[in-house]
Amino acid sequence: MRRASGIDLALNVRPQGMPLQRWLYGELRAAILDGRLGPGARLPATRELAVRHGVSRGTVLGVFAQLAAEGYLSGAVGRGSFVASELPDGRFESAPVATATAAAAAPRARRQAGGRGNDGIGLSARGRRLARSAFAVDGRSFPSRAFRPSQPDLESFPFALWARVAARRSRLSNRSILADGEAQGYRPLREAIADHVRVTRGIACTSDHVAIVGSAQQVTDLAARLWLDPGDTAWLEDPGYPGARLVLEAAGARIAAVPVDTNGIDVAAGRALAPEARLAYVTAGRQAPLGPALSLERRLALLDWAHTAGALVIEDDYDSEYRFEGRPLAALKSLDDAGHVIYCGTFSKLLFPALRIAYAVLPERLVDPFVAAWSLTGRHVPLAQQATLHAFMAEGHAGRHVRRMRELYGERAEALAEAARRHWTGLLALPPIVAGLDAPAFLPAGTDDALAARLAAEAGIETRALSSYAVQRAAPAGLVLGFASVDVDEIDAGARTLARVLQKMLYRT
Amino acid sequence: MRRASGIDLALNVRPQGMPLQRWLYGELRAAILDGRLGPGARLPATRELAVRHGVSRGTVLGVFAQLAAEGYLSGAVGRGSFVASELPDGRFESAPVATATAAAAAPRARRQAGGRGNDGIGLSARGRRLARSAFAVDGRSFPSRAFRPSQPDLESFPFALWARVAARRSRLSNRSILADGEAQGYRPLREAIADHVRVTRGIACTSDHVAIVGSAQQVTDLAARLWLDPGDTAWLEDPGYPGARLVLEAAGARIAAVPVDTNGIDVAAGRALAPEARLAYVTAGRQAPLGPALSLERRLALLDWAHTAGALVIEDDYDSEYRFEGRPLAALKSLDDAGHVIYCGTFSKLLFPALRIAYAVLPERLVDPFVAAWSLTGRHVPLAQQATLHAFMAEGHAGRHVRRMRELYGERAEALAEAARRHWTGLLALPPIVAGLDAPAFLPAGTDDALAARLAAEAGIETRALSSYAVQRAAPAGLVLGFASVDVDEIDAGARTLARVLQKMLYRT
Repeated sequence: MRRASGIDLALNVRPQGMPLQRWLYGELRAAILDGRLGPGARLPATRELAVRHGVSRGTVLGVFAQLAAEGYLSGAVGRGSFVASELPDGRFESAPVATATAAAAAPRARRQAGGRGNDGIGLSARGRRLARSAFAVDGRSFPSRAFRPSQPDLESFPFALWARVAARRSRLSNRSILADGEAQGYRPLREAIADHVRVTRGIACTSDHVAIVGSAQQVTDLAARLWLDPGDTAWLEDPGYPGARLVLEAAGARIAAVPVDTNGIDVAAGRALAPEARLAYVTAGRQAPLGPALSLERRLALLDWAHTAGALVIEDDYDSEYRFEGRPLAALKSLDDAGHVIYCGTFSKLLFPALRIAYAVLPERLVDPFVAAWSLTGRHVPLAQQATLHAFMAEGHAGRHVRRMRELYGERAEALAEAARRHWTGLLALPPIVAGLDAPAFLPAGTDDALAARLAAEAGIETRALSSYAVQRAAPAGLVLGFASVDVDEIDAGARTLARVLQKMLYRT
Repeated sequence: MRRASGIDLALNVRPQGMPLQRWLYGELRAAILDGRLGPGARLPATRELAVRHGVSRGTVLGVFAQLAAEGYLSGAVGRGSFVASELPDGRFESAPVATATAAAAAPRARRQAGGRGNDGIGLSARGRRLARSAFAVDGRSFPSRAFRPSQPDLESFPFALWARVAARRSRLSNRSILADGEAQGYRPLREAIADHVRVTRGIACTSDHVAIVGSAQQVTDLAARLWLDPGDTAWLEDPGYPGARLVLEAAGARIAAVPVDTNGIDVAAGRALAPEARLAYVTAGRQAPLGPALSLERRLALLDWAHTAGALVIEDDYDSEYRFEGRPLAALKSLDDAGHVIYCGTFSKLLFPALRIAYAVLPERLVDPFVAAWSLTGRHVPLAQQATLHAFMAEGHAGRHVRRMRELYGERAEALAEAARRHWTGLLALPPIVAGLDAPAFLPAGTDDALAARLAAEAGIETRALSSYAVQRAAPAGLVLGFASVDVDEIDAGARTLARVLQKMLYRT
């Protein structure tokens, strides 16, 4: 296109509904950037532009002032306006449409050499670990289907009551609830949480030990960054929770995969494998995915090791509130006299996932560092959410809901056991379920459980293969089956469908 | 205390109001843990315990079942219950009350040797960088006072309207709003944000480029971890925003402190200082703390450099929406044809801080890595907050509020300028204010501005010393003064008080 020098500048027609000023600004800016109005070029007089394009002179003056403020134009009143001379001539011709691909094609050489090879984007080695997509939340279909793991029953959540509490809470609030809150969390909520874990989990703590964040992943991420330098070793249960493995790896940890048996993580094996590890991540209440609670002997041995090694233990207590026989087990943290355990709880499974409130109960000495790190990298959790949750707990609704759900999930666990007896003989062995939202069921040894999960998914049944929890060793072949969010009829129907799939896969019938 | 062997076990009196079962459980557990009931010891018969302590036998059986489930007891029906024999005898005598201090006294030797010396806690070197407490949010007093920096006017926020929108939104929602959302953010909100930045900031993007997180700090943290390995260099404006410096240092970045002049960051100086830097953090719209917008020439030079170096630019656009003359300037991101700029916006200053919603507009190639990293380390922002914000924007309330505030803050900026003319001659020079929620004012060269800020605070006036923004060079002596959240009368009164403080400090009168 011929380079216009002022008056004969062609402008595109104004799209319907676009304000005059925005249109003119965009057109002139585009003309400058694509070189039609080169550096130093004189712009048409404001009067001429106004007449030519049927706009007021005030509009044109406003556009010129804007372009001048942004550095596109220079000039003085009465002498006309000029395209700024510092604009490197032809800059946009020389590198006009560098695309993502083109830009990615020239990363620095060491990026290509280092780490796990070039990702085609230019991420750091750390960034490539962080950016593994295997752990994305993805807003899956609602409602839940048989046998989606880790799902509380959202159909049973007292949604209208929650909304009323939220509305009342915001009516009662004053404007201080709009201002920045404490990074550590809204104090009344921290007090309610401290009461809750004191009573239900036997943890001696006050609100000063509680820090509120947005997810259990955030607790693990912050703890790992505070406690580990890249190359430090962390114990993980094998098989174990992939979310923890990925976030620890992203923090640069070397993973020591410690085997799990019917008493939970094998502490002696961990000591033999990596005595000098700096951190251990454990699901003491209900081992994910296999289910056993960590035995008392193991609990004491783990704390002994942590004391000797100066290591930190993260106790991820994700769903052991839902225990169908007796009271919930006391937490590992309740035995932590020496301050080595960070207890992590979440409301995602207790109430609902989209609430996005989790918490850490911290050893005294780690409170300040943890809160400082959270304040720096995340700030705090929305105050309105915290205040609503506090009211929901203080008014007893949370406790009532959990008790109702414990009963409901217990019935569904029983229904699953019943369905297993009815449909799964020779296919899938379901050990007794004593707690949680899901349970592992075992396939005949040697079965390809990933294939089984895939075939089940094709038949509309959601499960997770035990092999997807494997860290280093092969996990026992099996499927994790969620029952908490599935009603009794669907449990039976789903069990039948799953039996058909497995029958066909295992026995080709 | 004499080791009891069963029947003569002394239990503490039950505190008033404590349920029988919880009391008995706690007493027996304590007796086992402190050794009064040693490994293998036979417990009193349930019947005897029931009679002796006036509780039902069912209660005692429940407690025994709980202790057995937790591994404290073994035994079989009819044969009595015994303390588990695997309990290491005397374990709790040998390490009974290790306190936080005792535990901290024996960290591993390399902790004491490495990094910036022993912190007495055992944090990693990275952890010590993360845990600097200088950047804590602390839920300061409300309402705001003269001249608190970075504060929008919360008194003017349409709080009742927001609450009504939130309540209506939750009535209209179905239960899918309880389930996990997309990590990238609620799509309708991403669309509204894309529209917003297209119109007001000239950024060509769609909702696919927008990712929603909880704070601007989170954007910088994620970008730094994705793009930098420890030891990589990052450009920072000097003076510049401490929150960015701290989070980049926490990510292990070496900081290249690039000087700032009246055109913003001096790109040529940055190229001379650290041409191979991997990242630059800039406040292009209104340099924090000095105020100038980055000139067009510098913008183009910055993008040229980023293209050559394969570097990432974080544009933190924290408050330049509030521009009192002309339209807001187009964002640096609007010139980013080659995909080197992450634009970061926040609703903390546009609406209110406790909302905790910020967003990144990402180059195409960085969308997936950024969202994966956020999903892994943070999951997603509460859905109810996102849905309410979306409705508030879609119904036009957000736009109306921002326009009202732009007018109000403009009046207050004018009032501050007026007060400066009236009270500050020879004390504090206030350059013209064209945008933002606060402005720098300059003290006579050589003044100790930290002292000035401290003395002002003692007189009830909040400010921030420019020296607190210094990275490497001395910053010009001065104070950052917030005006947006201070009414006109208080601005004048505050200016008078501040004048008195400075008069006394500078001239001893």
